[in-house]
Formats: sequence, C-alpha cells, structure tokens
Amino acid sequence: MKKINVGLLGCGTIGTGVAKILIENKDILLSRVGAVLNLKYVADIDLETERGIPFDDGVFISDAFKVVDDPDIDIVVEMIGGEGIAKDLILRAFDNGKPVVLLAGHGNTLFKTAGENDVDLAFEASVGGCMPIIKSLRESLVGNHIKSMAGILNGTCNYILSRSAKDGSSFEDVLAEAQKNGFAEADPTLDIEGIDTAHKLAILTSLAYGMEINFQDIYIEGISKITPMDIEFAREFGYRIKLLAITKDTGDAVEARVHPTMIPFTNPLSSVNGVLNAVTITGDAVGDMMLYGYGAGMMPTASAVVGDIVDIARNLLAGAESRIPLLSYQMDRIRKIPIRRIDEIFIHYYFRFSALDRPGVLSKISGILGNNEISIKSVQQKGRKTNGAVPIVMLTHLAREADVQKALTEILNLDVVSDRPVLIRIEDENQED
Amino acid sequence: MKKINVGLLGCGTIGTGVAKILIENKDILLSRVGAVLNLKYVADIDLETERGIPFDDGVFISDAFKVVDDPDIDIVVEMIGGEGIAKDLILRAFDNGKPVVLLAGHGNTLFKTAGENDVDLAFEASVGGCMPIIKSLRESLVGNHIKSMAGILNGTCNYILSRSAKDGSSFEDVLAEAQKNGFAEADPTLDIEGIDTAHKLAILTSLAYGMEINFQDIYIEGISKITPMDIEFAREFGYRIKLLAITKDTGDAVEARVHPTMIPFTNPLSSVNGVLNAVTITGDAVGDMMLYGYGAGMMPTASAVVGDIVDIARNLLAGAESRIPLLSYQMDRIRKIPIRRIDEIFIHYYFRFSALDRPGVLSKISGILGNNEISIKSVQQKGRKTNGAVPIVMLTHLAREADVQKALTEILNLDVVSDRPVLIRIEDENQED
Repeated sequence: MKKINVGLLGCGTIGTGVAKILIENKDILLSRVGAVLNLKYVADIDLETERGIPFDDGVFISDAFKVVDDPDIDIVVEMIGGEGIAKDLILRAFDNGKPVVLLAGHGNTLFKTAGENDVDLAFEASVGGCMPIIKSLRESLVGNHIKSMAGILNGTCNYILSRSAKDGSSFEDVLAEAQKNGFAEADPTLDIEGIDTAHKLAILTSLAYGMEINFQDIYIEGISKITPMDIEFAREFGYRIKLLAITKDTGDAVEARVHPTMIPFTNPLSSVNGVLNAVTITGDAVGDMMLYGYGAGMMPTASAVVGDIVDIARNLLAGAESRIPLLSYQMDRIRKIPIRRIDEIFIHYYFRFSALDRPGVLSKISGILGNNEISIKSVQQKGRKTNGAVPIVMLTHLAREADVQKALTEILNLDVVSDRPVLIRIEDENQED
Repeated sequence: MKKINVGLLGCGTIGTGVAKILIENKDILLSRVGAVLNLKYVADIDLETERGIPFDDGVFISDAFKVVDDPDIDIVVEMIGGEGIAKDLILRAFDNGKPVVLLAGHGNTLFKTAGENDVDLAFEASVGGCMPIIKSLRESLVGNHIKSMAGILNGTCNYILSRSAKDGSSFEDVLAEAQKNGFAEADPTLDIEGIDTAHKLAILTSLAYGMEINFQDIYIEGISKITPMDIEFAREFGYRIKLLAITKDTGDAVEARVHPTMIPFTNPLSSVNGVLNAVTITGDAVGDMMLYGYGAGMMPTASAVVGDIVDIARNLLAGAESRIPLLSYQMDRIRKIPIRRIDEIFIHYYFRFSALDRPGVLSKISGILGNNEISIKSVQQKGRKTNGAVPIVMLTHLAREADVQKALTEILNLDVVSDRPVLIRIEDENQED
C-alpha cells in the first residue's frame, strides 16, 4: 500500500478540522487517491486542550521543527498562520524540498521561494474557504482571458449587511450581536474595514492576470458607515449593498478595489446572505460563472485544505511536482501590471445628501454636479427628516471618481447641506452609461 | 519551446469554439501552460462552411482517422458526439495510447477501456457546460463524503420553467418560442422529458459515490405536464418549480432521480433562471456549495473543453498520465451500489386535485390519504374553476412514494374528482417531517 506522510503544523480550529477529515474519512480518501494519507505528526504548543481526535501515540507533539525536518514527511500543512514562526517553518520545509499547504497567502516572497525551490505550494483555503476559486483560475478557466471578478469574501461583513437588510438593525447592533455569537472577532477591524477582503482580492488578481501586486495599491473602504437608511433606499432602487472585492481588466491596467457596492437583484451575488461567500468570474469564453459556499468555519475550510493535500499527494505519486505554476502563470510570465488609481475609475454612483428643506437646494447641488461632469439619472427627495434635514438621494450616469470627490467636497461646503454626503458605488451590468 | 499537438475531431459549434480559444488565446495559454498548444489537425466532413478561423494550410482536413493515427498527435479532442464513428475514433485513439477529451460521457464502456489502456479521458463539458463540477468532485471535494447533490442541468427546461414563472405562459407557448429562438431543439424530447438531465445525473452519481450506474434505474419525469397554475400555486407556498437532478446517499443505497421539484425561495437554485445551470453539492465537510454558469453554448462549453486539454497537457509535460482516476475513485474501488426505487423514497408532496365543488369532497380525499399513511400539512381550496371543477391543493408531511401513488389512483376513481391529480415532489431542507 502506497503511503504519503502528512505533517500538520498547528492544531487550532482549521488544523483540527484537517486532522478530523484525514482520520475520519481515511477510507474514502484511500479509495480516491490510491494511497494512504498518513497523518504522521500534528504539532501544536497546546497539547492539553481536547481536540476530540484519537491520535495514535507519538503523533501529537510540540516541536514543529521536528515535523519539517523529518525526512519521512512528504507534505507539510501549515495551519498556524501569521508572519512569525509559521514563515520560518515554511521556509525550512522548502529548504528540505517539501511541498507545503497554506491557510493564507503570505504575499509574494513565499511564492517566489517556492518557485525557486521547485516545490508545490497550495493555498486554496486562503480565498473563499471551501470553494474552488483558486483551482478554477489555475486550471478550469485556463483558456479564458479573465475580464472581471467580483466577490463576497468576508463572512462577517456579509452577515452584518444581510442582517441589516433583513430587519433594519444598525451596523453597531448587528456587529455587537455577531461578536456575541462568534461570527465576528473581538477586534473586528480587519474584517469590517475590508482589509481581509483586500488580501483575498490581491491573491485573485495575481492569479487572474499573472501580476505581482502591491497591496497598498488596492483601494479599500469598509462597511462601518453603511446605514439601514441607505440599505432601504438601495432596495427601493432595486439594489442590495454588499462589500465586494472587484477586479477588472481595463486593457492597460487592472482595477482592484474593495468597497460597499450596490448591485441589482438580478445579480446572483445579491442573494448571497449570511456568512456565505461567493465569487462571480467573467471570462471571454466562459461568460459569467459563480462559485458559492462557506468562506470560513472549521470543516468547510478544512475541506479545501484536504483538496490541496490530495493535489500534492497525487503530484508526488505521479512524480509530477510543480505540475501547475503557483500563480497560474509561468514564473517568467509574471509581470508588474499597474493598478488603476480609484480616482481614475468611471462608475455609477448613489449619493445621499442631508439637505435643509428649502427652495433652491436641489438646484445648488445639481449645479455643482453638472460643473464637475456628473450627470444625474434620477433624484428623489425622501420625506423622512433626520436632525431637521431631509435626505435627497441620487443615482448618476457614469462619472469619474476624482470628479465625484471634488463635487462632494464643494457640496459639503454649501450652507444648506448639513452632513457629509454619502457615496456608494454601483456595479450594474444592465446600465450602459 | 515545448509543444503539445492537439487533434480536434468535429468542427461543429463546440469544436469551432475550442479551435477559436486555442488560436485566439494562444499567448495566454502559453504563458499559463509553459508550452504551445498547437492545433495540428481539425477534422470534419464539412470543409466548406466558413468557421471564421484562420487555419494554417493542411490543418483543416476531412480524414478523422488520420488524426488519431498520427504519431505526433498528443491529445485527441472528440467533439463529434454520438455512438457511431465518434466511438470508433476514441477507441482507436486509446489503442494508439492517446488521451482523449470528450463532450459527452459515453457510458461505462469507454471509462473502462481508458482505464485499461492507462490513458487520460476527460469530460468536464459533459455536465453543466462551463462549470467545474467534475473537477470539483474528482479533486476539490475529494476529502468529503458527498451527502447529496441537486442540479439544474438542462438549459432548455430551465428556460421554459423560468419564462412560465415570469409571465404565466403555458409550456406549449414557451417551448414554441424557445424553438424559434434556438434555445430548444426541433425535437425537444431528450431535453423536456428529462433524459438529457438524467444522463448528466448518471455521471455525477458515478463520480460522487464511485459506482457503476444502470441508466435504467434512474427515475425520470420531464416538465411537459407542468402548468402555469401549479407554478403560481407553488409561488404562493414560497416555492419555485425546477427540473432537478437529485442524488443522495441513503446509507445502503443511493437515490438518483430527475423530476420537476418544488424548492423554497431560500434555496439558491430557486433563483437560477433562463438557460443557466447550477449544481449544489452537500458534503460532510464542505456543507453546501454551489456552482453556477452556462450549461451550454459554444464558448462556455469550449472553455471547459480547453480546461480539460490543459489538464492533460500538464500531465503529459510532467510525465503524469492517469494522475487522477477517471471516475474519481480508483478503478478497483468502483462498486455496484443499488439505486433506491422511486417507490421507496420518502419526500414531501404537493398535490392538486380537480374536484367538483360539493360538500364532503375534501373528506373523501383526505380519508384516502390518511388510510395510506399520508398526512396533510396544509390544504387550500382555490377559488378559480377550470372545467367546472375547483382546484384543491395540498402539501404533505413526509410520505412514501408507493403509498402516494396508490392513494392517487384511489382518489382518481372517486366520482367527485374530474381529472388526474397533479403530483410535484418538494425538496425543502427547512421541513423536518
């Protein structure tokens, strides 16, 4: 019986899930892979907490370096995460010629080192949890020019926005509840400010376009300023608000941005609710395709990790390491492609102004918009007063972000406008101009 | 520069799409694969019709056997289809040790022959067009016990049902329109009677459970009897009607059935409209996952075929043929698993009876149901009369199909029931009993 020895680093939530699958589904894995995936070591600093897994004697150890240095270990599965010891362990595994499965992307350096060492590095779980988005980009869609992708990639944000849309709860209330239920971290900044989503977008953009990406070039805006009022007005226009990761090929550059986005009910992403994730991919051949599933959680994430382990095991069994380039493109084809500055993008906008209920207000606002080349598609003055002001909501035709920012600053300076205007970008494939 | 020679058999719609991608996206394929995918031959009996592709001299030929016999051809792409010459060509390619990409499954024989010849056989395009459902089952979800799958796998049926749901048009009217627009065949039987869907379900079931499948054991019911009235009543209960391919692991057997199915609005399949396809997969680790995209059409289907070509090319380049077992399981693990007879399944039902509007009718109907162990969850007598009869609609708790069929036959014999009762099965994960 052929055997592949797996060494697992880190037995936290996801690591435990991976161990569970390898042990509990051992037989189905054997019947599909044709070799035993033997969990030789599981290393963790905490050997006390009960994981509910019947490890054989000598499997559960505290010394992670013993794992990456053991000549019998065929595949290293790094589930510790972070930039500290995890990175040292991965580099040592590469030095020892061992392929590695990762939980997170770890940026350009690791990809390069793996490529130079000619070892496999797999990271399906790093974007969209269980769903095969990385495999789709590297394999299934390999014949396509990717025109664009849009993803709901953070379950915390999607849970908050879905709850607000369902019952009108405020951001703060839903966040507090999500924290209580364990759907949000105690410090939720990385999630709600869009940073986690942007890290995932960086990986997808790299894979789609074969590019090195500077994370700082990605425009990032979180969901903390989204109010139930805007969610309700969006609904009246036929839109839902989602935190989207968006990338588009614009010919000479690539867009890569994360922000709350209004999408029409007809967009299948609009009905992705709760902690679920989804990605739509538009390719020149495939048209629109969508993947949908759990973007986090012990077992869905572990499912993706085990998929990676099997991919690498099959490569080892066939003597076919580095069968697929890590970043979807051959290393010598990875280029620096500029990311378009947010100022330069053209898009549709939703604005909400808090204006005093006086004659001439709309004329002043629309005058400034017109002077800045922004043309209005529809305007509605909503009846409800907040702090003595009336909300005026507008949808625009295509406008340039720099013009919009300039106009909004001018409008904010009007004495009839009482509060910072709200801006939400719209992605609506049904709108031409 | 490394080169892989591709021989394409059949230059109809999909074949033309494949040739287009290989030629027009040559550079992006090179940068991803690290080798030229050279379209050496395209064989078709019709060399006259303009395909809009600038083939080099000597590429476009009429002799398909020249392609499969050429020692320089590395991969054969069979886009002719059917059981005639296509099968002869495939077997000859296997004899010559060449891997083959297929458009349709061709049943158990071909899988066995490919396995015995130790050559790759790929067929991603045979189910769900562009979407990577076969790759997901063979690779991404390899660590999961598949608990169930449900798919919308026929664009013609989904177009007809979506149009009826949208505007109340009858089956006959929408079918006629679909035929006019080219969304339905002149003889639509294979599509609308569910046979095409069942062929796809057979492939998915084989891959999920590692089983040889007898096509005749799949229960098949098409959409030709679905009326706008039932679509409307379904909507009032919170359901949509879709033609679903369903497979479930029931422990000692597997369910495999194709029939019109009511699913709740909360099921993401319910919002898959028009010619789009989608599959939900429920695994013990992954939870619920969905793939969604175009299930047919020149370019989406060709995208899947090119994904297969590249998979095989990468195997050839790495010397890793037969890296993944054809049917997801190692050949010696493929078993005969019984398919549960439709009579034996337990499910929820929607019934519509055409009953005379007289006292005591409901008592007679519900008496027969009760005598057959079928308990009613809700009943509504609808006001509208058709042919002097009034529709009575019912939803049941879980009931056994054999009991239901027996009860409906008894009910049809009642003199107060004027027409064959309508039965539509319900898949509602929110209903427990």
